[in-house]
Amino acid sequence: MDNLTLVAMSSIVTAGLTIGIGAIGPALGEGRALAQALTALAQQPDEANNITRTLFVGLALVESTGIYCLVISLILLFANPYWNYFIKLGGG
Amino acid sequence: MDNLTLVAMSSIVTAGLTIGIGAIGPALGEGRALAQALTALAQQPDEANNITRTLFVGLALVESTGIYCLVISLILLFANPYWNYFIKLGGG
Amino acid sequence: MDNLTLVAMSSIVTAGLTIGIGAIGPALGEGRALAQALTALAQQPDEANNITRTLFVGLALVESTGIYCLVISLILLFANPYWNYFIKLGGG
Amino acid sequence: MDNLTLVAMSSIVTAGLTIGIGAIGPALGEGRALAQALTALAQQPDEANNITRTLFVGLALVESTGIYCLVISLILLFANPYWNYFIKLGGG
Amino acid sequence: MDNLTLVAMSSIVTAGLTIGIGAIGPALGEGRALAQALTALAQQPDEANNITRTLFVGLALVESTGIYCLVISLILLFANPYWNYFIKLGGG
Amino acid sequence: MDNLTLVAMSSIVTAGLTIGIGAIGPALGEGRALAQALTALAQQPDEANNITRTLFVGLALVESTGIYCLVISLILLFANPYWNYFIKLGGG
Amino acid sequence: MDNLTLVAMSSIVTAGLTIGIGAIGPALGEGRALAQALTALAQQPDEANNITRTLFVGLALVESTGIYCLVISLILLFANPYWNYFIKLGGG
Amino acid sequence: MDNLTLVAMSSIVTAGLTIGIGAIGPALGEGRALAQALTALAQQPDEANNITRTLFVGLALVESTGIYCLVISLILLFANPYWNYFIKLGGG
Amino acid sequence: MDNLTLVAMSSIVTAGLTIGIGAIGPALGEGRALAQALTALAQQPDEANNITRTLFVGLALVESTGIYCLVISLILLFANPYWNYFIKLGGG
Amino acid sequence: MDNLTLVAMSSIVTAGLTIGIGAIGPALGEGRALAQALTALAQQPDEANNITRTLFVGLALVESTGIYCLVISLILLFANPYWNYFIKLGGG
Amino acid sequence: MDNLTLVAMSSIVTAGLTIGIGAIGPALGEGRALAQALTALAQQPDEANNITRTLFVGLALVESTGIYCLVISLILLFANPYWNYFIKLGGG
Amino acid sequence: MDNLTLVAMSSIVTAGLTIGIGAIGPALGEGRALAQALTALAQQPDEANNITRTLFVGLALVESTGIYCLVISLILLFANPYWNYFIKLGGG
Amino acid sequence: MDNLTLVAMSSIVTAGLTIGIGAIGPALGEGRALAQALTALAQQPDEANNITRTLFVGLALVESTGIYCLVISLILLFANPYWNYFIKLGGG
Amino acid sequence: MDNLTLVAMSSIVTAGLTIGIGAIGPALGEGRALAQALTALAQQPDEANNITRTLFVGLALVESTGIYCLVISLILLFANPYWNYFIKLGGG
Repeated sequence: MDNLTLVAMSSIVTAGLTIGIGAIGPALGEGRALAQALTALAQQPDEANNITRTLFVGLALVESTGIYCLVISLILLFANPYWNYFIKLGGG
Repeated sequence: MDNLTLVAMSSIVTAGLTIGIGAIGPALGEGRALAQALTALAQQPDEANNITRTLFVGLALVESTGIYCLVISLILLFANPYWNYFIKLGGG
Repeated sequence: MDNLTLVAMSSIVTAGLTIGIGAIGPALGEGRALAQALTALAQQPDEANNITRTLFVGLALVESTGIYCLVISLILLFANPYWNYFIKLGGG
Repeated sequence: MDNLTLVAMSSIVTAGLTIGIGAIGPALGEGRALAQALTALAQQPDEANNITRTLFVGLALVESTGIYCLVISLILLFANPYWNYFIKLGGG
Repeated sequence: MDNLTLVAMSSIVTAGLTIGIGAIGPALGEGRALAQALTALAQQPDEANNITRTLFVGLALVESTGIYCLVISLILLFANPYWNYFIKLGGG
Repeated sequence: MDNLTLVAMSSIVTAGLTIGIGAIGPALGEGRALAQALTALAQQPDEANNITRTLFVGLALVESTGIYCLVISLILLFANPYWNYFIKLGGG
Repeated sequence: MDNLTLVAMSSIVTAGLTIGIGAIGPALGEGRALAQALTALAQQPDEANNITRTLFVGLALVESTGIYCLVISLILLFANPYWNYFIKLGGG
Repeated sequence: MDNLTLVAMSSIVTAGLTIGIGAIGPALGEGRALAQALTALAQQPDEANNITRTLFVGLALVESTGIYCLVISLILLFANPYWNYFIKLGGG
Repeated sequence: MDNLTLVAMSSIVTAGLTIGIGAIGPALGEGRALAQALTALAQQPDEANNITRTLFVGLALVESTGIYCLVISLILLFANPYWNYFIKLGGG
Repeated sequence: MDNLTLVAMSSIVTAGLTIGIGAIGPALGEGRALAQALTALAQQPDEANNITRTLFVGLALVESTGIYCLVISLILLFANPYWNYFIKLGGG
Repeated sequence: MDNLTLVAMSSIVTAGLTIGIGAIGPALGEGRALAQALTALAQQPDEANNITRTLFVGLALVESTGIYCLVISLILLFANPYWNYFIKLGGG
Repeated sequence: MDNLTLVAMSSIVTAGLTIGIGAIGPALGEGRALAQALTALAQQPDEANNITRTLFVGLALVESTGIYCLVISLILLFANPYWNYFIKLGGG
Repeated sequence: MDNLTLVAMSSIVTAGLTIGIGAIGPALGEGRALAQALTALAQQPDEANNITRTLFVGLALVESTGIYCLVISLILLFANPYWNYFIKLGGG
Repeated sequence: MDNLTLVAMSSIVTAGLTIGIGAIGPALGEGRALAQALTALAQQPDEANNITRTLFVGLALVESTGIYCLVISLILLFANPYWNYFIKLGGG
């Protein structure tokens, strides 16, 4: 078990778990907001434009927390600074 | 237990858990939104077009967090950068 | 405990857990949507076509997250890229 | 603890846990949908045909996630590709 | 700790846990459906035939997930393919 | 720690946990159904026969999942096939 | 740590945990049913006989799952077949 | 760590945990039933005798599951059959 | 780590955890009953005597499960039969 | 790690955890009762004396379970019988 | 790892966890009571004096369980009897 | 791993966890109280002074449990008595 | 496993978990607020400006806790002070 | 694994977990308060100034518990007293 393997393993496991755990919150939060939006639409069809606009701006904000997780996950897979260091060290 | 085996094992386990855990949130969130959509449809049949359109756009957003997990899971199985490195290293 | 055994074991365990955990979310989400659909049907029998169509399109979307898990699970059992690599390595 | 034993043990444990965990979701989801169906029947006896048809089609969909788990569980017990490989290896 | 003992131990533990965990879901789901059925009966005594028929067909479906667990549990105890293999191996 | 002891220990622990965990679901489910039955009785005293008959048939179904656990638990204690094998092996 | 001690220890721990865990479900279920019974009594004092009779028959059924746990627990303490085997073995 | 110490330790720990865990269920269940009883009393003061009688008979049943845990706990401390065996063995 | 120390340590830890865990249930149950009692008092001030009497008799019953834990906890600290045995053994 | 250190360490850890865990229940239970008391006061200002008296007597009872934990915790810190024994042993 | 270090480490960890866990209950309980107090104030502004007096006396009682944890935590840090013993022992 | 390192490590970890866990309760409790305060304000705008004053005094009390955690956490970082002892010991 | 590898591994794992866990709270909180905002919009379309302005200012505050986690996570990946120290140490 | 590495590792892990866990409470609490504020705004548009002022002052208080976690987290990363000690020790 040399250093490269250990860094690779912890990066792989963390990349998966980060997006795995981080997808629970946004999905549930968006589902809840979406559910309420449909109730609001049914109650006030005249305000449909206003409601759907607020809904999608808000959903984008909720989605952003999921995006943070995805970004960290992709950084760990494809732009991992620690991995790059060890690769350079080994190849230097 | 050489390096290749360790990287392979952690990729396999993480790929499965990522999509396994990551499917819980979207499924529950979509189920909730869908349930409310049907109630809204029953209350305002005249707004059916508006409601179903908002529903499916919103569901796509919720589904996206599940897709992130699937993408990371498939990357770990079929385009794992760490695995490729070690394969090249071994075959170089 | 040679490499092949370790890869096989982790594939078996992960394949089972992926679909085991991943079935909880869709089943609960679909159950909830279905329950609400029946209430909606009882309230608005005239909209039965609209409600059931939206219900089954939506259920298909929820089911899709369960399908992702099943696909990853079957890939791990029958088309595992890491296993294939080690088999070739051994048989090469 | 040779390789065959390890593969057998992990297959046995995973087969049981997969269906054990995977039965929780469908059972709860179906129970919820069934409960609501009976309420709907009591509210709209005239729609009994429509409600029960939607109910049983939907329950079949929910049950399907439980079936996935059962299938994976039975594959692990009776058509385990990894086990077959090791058996052939040993008997070859 | 020879191979036979290990396979026996993991079969025993898994058989118990499978039905132990797998009984929670059906029991709760059936209890919920039954509870609602009685409320429905009290609200619409005239639909008693229809309600109880739907109830028992539905309960059978919920029970089926519990039966899956029982079947896997009994297979692990009395028709375990891995155990049979090792017995033959030893007695061959 | 010879083989007999290990099989005995795992049988003892599993027998207890199976019924211990498996009793939670039926007890909660039956309690819920019973609670609703009494409410139904108070609302529709004229349907007492129908309600109590449906209640007890349903409770028997819920109880059955608890019985499965008890049966597996007693099999593990008094008719354990693996234990019998090892006893015969030792005494053969 | 000879065999007798191991069997004794696992029997002691399992006996306690079985009844400890197994008492949670019945107690909560009975408490719920009892609570609803008192509400029903206050709503329909004229049906007191019917309600209390159904209550106590039902409570007996719920209690039965607790009794199963107690029985397994006492068997493990005072009529443990595995313990008896090892005692005979030692004293034979 | 001789045998007597191991049996004593596991008896001590199990005795405490059995009653510790086993007290949660009855206490919550009784609290719930008691809470509902007071509501019922306030709604139907004329049925006070009937309500309190049903309450205390029911509470006794709920309490019984707590008593089971206490009995097993005291047996483990003061009438432990396994301990007695080892004491006799040592002193025989 | 001689025997006396091990018995002392497990007694100390168990004594604390028993009352620590065992205090959760009674406290929550009593809080719930008390909360409902005050609502009942506000609804039926004329039944204050009856309500408070039932309340305190019931609370005593709930408190009893907490007392069981305290008793076992104090027995483990000050009248531990296993400790006494080892002390006598050492001092005999 | 001599005996005195082990007994001291387990006493310290247990003393903290006992009161730490044991404070959750009473705090939540009292908060609930207090919340309901204020609602009752707002509904029936004329019964303020009766309500607050019942409240504080009841809160004292709930608090008692927290006090039990504090007492055991302080006994473990300042009047630990096992510690005293070992101190005497060492100093005898 | 001499004795002093072990006692110091366990005191530090326990001191933090005690107040960390012990702060959850009082904070939630007080938040609940406070929330209800404000509702009560809005319903019965004329009883403001009575309500706020009862509120703050009750909050003090709830806070007391948090204070117990703080006291034990500070005792463990600044007046730890076991630490003092070992210091004296070392310096004696 | 000398003594100083161990004490430093456990202080660092405990300091973080204490405030990390301890922030959950106050934040949730305050959020709840605040939410209810705004509802109360909307219902009784005339009592705004009274409500906000009670709110902020109450929030300060809830916040106090969070402050306790912060204080213990800062003591562990900057005024740790055990650390000071070992530093003096080392430097004496 | 030299020092650099250990620091790199713990930084990778912590960076992922921090944002993974830290995304749950904001996503759920924002989803809840957004859901209520849409209900409020449907009830008071005339206050749309006021409601959406308060909503987005509030969401920004909730999002801030997610941003804290992202910042710490990025610091751990790209500006880790401990990593820099060890790099300098190694390269000095 | 020298002392510096251990202190660095525990600081990194704790810094991440502290803010990760500590962000859950404030985010949920603020989301709840914000949700209620929007409902209040819709009910009493005339009190908008008063409601939003109370909201943001209250949110600041809730946010403060998140800030405590951030502060401790940053102290652990950039002003860790234990790290500074060991650095000085090494460089002295």
